[in-house]
Amino acid sequence: MKALPPNLLEELAAAVGPDWVISDPDRLLVYESDAQTAHNVAPQAVVLPSDTDQASQVARVLHRHQIPLVPRGAGTGLSGGALATRGGVVVGTSRMNKILEVDPSNRRAVVQSGVLNTDLSDATAPHGLHYAPDPSSQAACTIGGNVAENSGGPHCLKYGVTSRYITGLRVVLPDGTTVWLGGQGREAPSFDLVGLFVGSEGCFGLATEVEVALTPLPEAVETLLAIFETLEDAGRAVTSIVSAGLLPAALEIVDRNTIKAVEASIFAAGYPTDAGAALVVEFDGVEAGLAEEAEKAEEFCKAAGAREVRRAESAEERLALWKGRKKAFGTMGRLAPDLLVQDATVPRTRLPEVLASIAEIADRYQLQVANVFHAGDGNLHPNIVFDRRDAEETRRVEAASKEIMGVCVDAGGTITGEHGVGADKQKYMHLVFSPGELEVLRRVKGVFDPDGRCNPGKVVPEDEAPSEAGPNERTEAKS
Amino acid sequence: MKALPPNLLEELAAAVGPDWVISDPDRLLVYESDAQTAHNVAPQAVVLPSDTDQASQVARVLHRHQIPLVPRGAGTGLSGGALATRGGVVVGTSRMNKILEVDPSNRRAVVQSGVLNTDLSDATAPHGLHYAPDPSSQAACTIGGNVAENSGGPHCLKYGVTSRYITGLRVVLPDGTTVWLGGQGREAPSFDLVGLFVGSEGCFGLATEVEVALTPLPEAVETLLAIFETLEDAGRAVTSIVSAGLLPAALEIVDRNTIKAVEASIFAAGYPTDAGAALVVEFDGVEAGLAEEAEKAEEFCKAAGAREVRRAESAEERLALWKGRKKAFGTMGRLAPDLLVQDATVPRTRLPEVLASIAEIADRYQLQVANVFHAGDGNLHPNIVFDRRDAEETRRVEAASKEIMGVCVDAGGTITGEHGVGADKQKYMHLVFSPGELEVLRRVKGVFDPDGRCNPGKVVPEDEAPSEAGPNERTEAKS
Repeated sequence: MKALPPNLLEELAAAVGPDWVISDPDRLLVYESDAQTAHNVAPQAVVLPSDTDQASQVARVLHRHQIPLVPRGAGTGLSGGALATRGGVVVGTSRMNKILEVDPSNRRAVVQSGVLNTDLSDATAPHGLHYAPDPSSQAACTIGGNVAENSGGPHCLKYGVTSRYITGLRVVLPDGTTVWLGGQGREAPSFDLVGLFVGSEGCFGLATEVEVALTPLPEAVETLLAIFETLEDAGRAVTSIVSAGLLPAALEIVDRNTIKAVEASIFAAGYPTDAGAALVVEFDGVEAGLAEEAEKAEEFCKAAGAREVRRAESAEERLALWKGRKKAFGTMGRLAPDLLVQDATVPRTRLPEVLASIAEIADRYQLQVANVFHAGDGNLHPNIVFDRRDAEETRRVEAASKEIMGVCVDAGGTITGEHGVGADKQKYMHLVFSPGELEVLRRVKGVFDPDGRCNPGKVVPEDEAPSEAGPNERTEAKS
Repeated sequence: MKALPPNLLEELAAAVGPDWVISDPDRLLVYESDAQTAHNVAPQAVVLPSDTDQASQVARVLHRHQIPLVPRGAGTGLSGGALATRGGVVVGTSRMNKILEVDPSNRRAVVQSGVLNTDLSDATAPHGLHYAPDPSSQAACTIGGNVAENSGGPHCLKYGVTSRYITGLRVVLPDGTTVWLGGQGREAPSFDLVGLFVGSEGCFGLATEVEVALTPLPEAVETLLAIFETLEDAGRAVTSIVSAGLLPAALEIVDRNTIKAVEASIFAAGYPTDAGAALVVEFDGVEAGLAEEAEKAEEFCKAAGAREVRRAESAEERLALWKGRKKAFGTMGRLAPDLLVQDATVPRTRLPEVLASIAEIADRYQLQVANVFHAGDGNLHPNIVFDRRDAEETRRVEAASKEIMGVCVDAGGTITGEHGVGADKQKYMHLVFSPGELEVLRRVKGVFDPDGRCNPGKVVPEDEAPSEAGPNERTEAKS
């Protein structure tokens, strides 16, 4: 990593003001990782523009000196996507936190990309609207970060992920050029550059303004918590509910290890610790018919062997039923100092066998795995708790993690459901892309970032070496 | 347009068999236009591969000779997208009409791109599933054509357009390379190339196989037809229904001129010819609560001044209520020999003023406009009936059409809702994109088609001249 050019910090300070350029090593430590603490590398500097113009000036300065530009939201990501792994300057959006426009009659809003997910929903609630995608970190994560990762959340089973709600993006490209992709109330015709940018993990440029579609707050909500003796029973209940054509807003499972972690914490939610799994089922929408849907779901849960089904009668009870799920990740800290949050998606019908394989892998490596998952869409989070200070255990975690990923891919799944590839899963890209397909991804990145300076070292591997697993059946020769 | 190289037809015949290479001028006439008959140009040859391998061989032959490759489905498009406007060879998908796999438990299917939209839904109906996007031409159009245009349809208000249902694409690139984008049961991580390809109007390559997500057939359907004295009243009913948070599967309006055309035809649907507008409202989903939603919608229609609301009590009655909407385009042929099918989208709240402006433009140019529209999402089809043999009238049609497009764009709308840019609306691209944005579109096309041979002369204008309208407020300077 080469040293920053002598004038760079002054030039950045001229763009954003001296208070908003960080170069003190102690202060840079804050930016050395995201919520996936396995990756650690501090940037050479951090700069915090307040708007698109400042961000554009910053990008021009970095372009002139050919320094890497690494976009960063709130740092709640789980794949090391916002780290300056190849050195360079992090451009943070924390000062770009203004809601620029709310247009209730067209159900649209325009926000700066550093606005927090829940702040947007809070601001639009008086109009009977909300921003639908609700990642678990929604109180802390930014809309811009959600755009970068194409974030999901518990209610995305019904509502869909971030890309469905982004209608326009104001983007500063790595050379400082500013473009609107879509936006300003109109859908852009021709190639879907908005959809392409969403999920591009900061590799194409920095989104500074985001136009979103808002969703009416549901008239009514019905929430159930079903307790099962085994994870398999909970899985069968999910299959019955989905097969019957019911469309819950959320279908979330936590397993025995997760329940134990939650119940041992200050967030104890009253989930029975001897249960094999707990399933949260939520319906929302217009009031008419909603209770009947909840009753049907309750019957399916009982038919699948639920020993108990609780149904919320009030908003407070609803929050109580959700509590064990919502606090799952936070309370796993009780089980061990470190947590590897995994993320993979498999076809829903393959869930039982994949869960059995994960349990077998955990046993074989003598590791504790706690499963939390969006069961309705087959998005798994097998989380491995461990102690990083134990080098031998850490090696077992890495090996088990790789095996789990292989099991998911072999079952027709993919290497990330919602957390992104980032720095963490580049090594698995060969499992799901052929060399020719990786080359197309590189060329697409090159359209926006011809110098390869925007979030370098992320997502698409730079070499063309085949994966250790060798070519799989998806590989097609490039002529 | 240069002549085809002497050996080309033989080489193509070697790839697909001599029966499937068309070069007889009489037979090429079939391919000289799509359903938008304003554009007419016959290709130099047509070739019809039966599968991906044949299509790849065809592309290699065309690549070797540097001849344009123009993908074509059923030719039901409405923007001249499938014409060989710069010469070259049309590669048609009509022989690629096999359903390769139906996986009911994971609600997925894989089809060759020439499969007809309704054939897929028919094949999956025994499993209680269907393919949701339902363009009006669904009995004739292909899944591959739907992918190219990112097609919508009446029920896309609730279900969303094509891009929401495409999970994978096997694509033959212009040089003959074959790649999978997504697909094979897994969602592809990183940049969304599937979403980028959907709606790319045949400019990136030829999709030969398409993996789609299937949707459960609704348990129940409720259909209403409301008759209004004026178009404005119908519009207010739509606003009330949407504002109340009801989510109909379809909200379709036909205006007075359209009703007259339908009722004068053999498809007379019993819509009153003195009415100002008819509104079809349909709800579908689980049975519980559906009747209540329909009742609410009926109340909103009456409150907005509906003089009559009919509600279907059987499947036959439902078809009858839909008939006037479904046959609208076909029966406009009664009004005059030619029909210019327009397509634009405006924010839903701007519909009343835009409709008033369109009526004013039609009056001023002494033209008859018949409006059919997907009212729920602001997608307008102002259709101008005329006689192409009358050169003076044709000039008025072109001028009025351009003014209508300007009104839609000025109201925050865009130049196409669902029919694509194709050859027809390239001239309007400057209205909604700045020169810098157009350059990004060109570079994205270049990733897949570096030689500019794939459906050339479509979508993105090749020059960089500013639009006649001059730069608008969306234009941002490219540094």
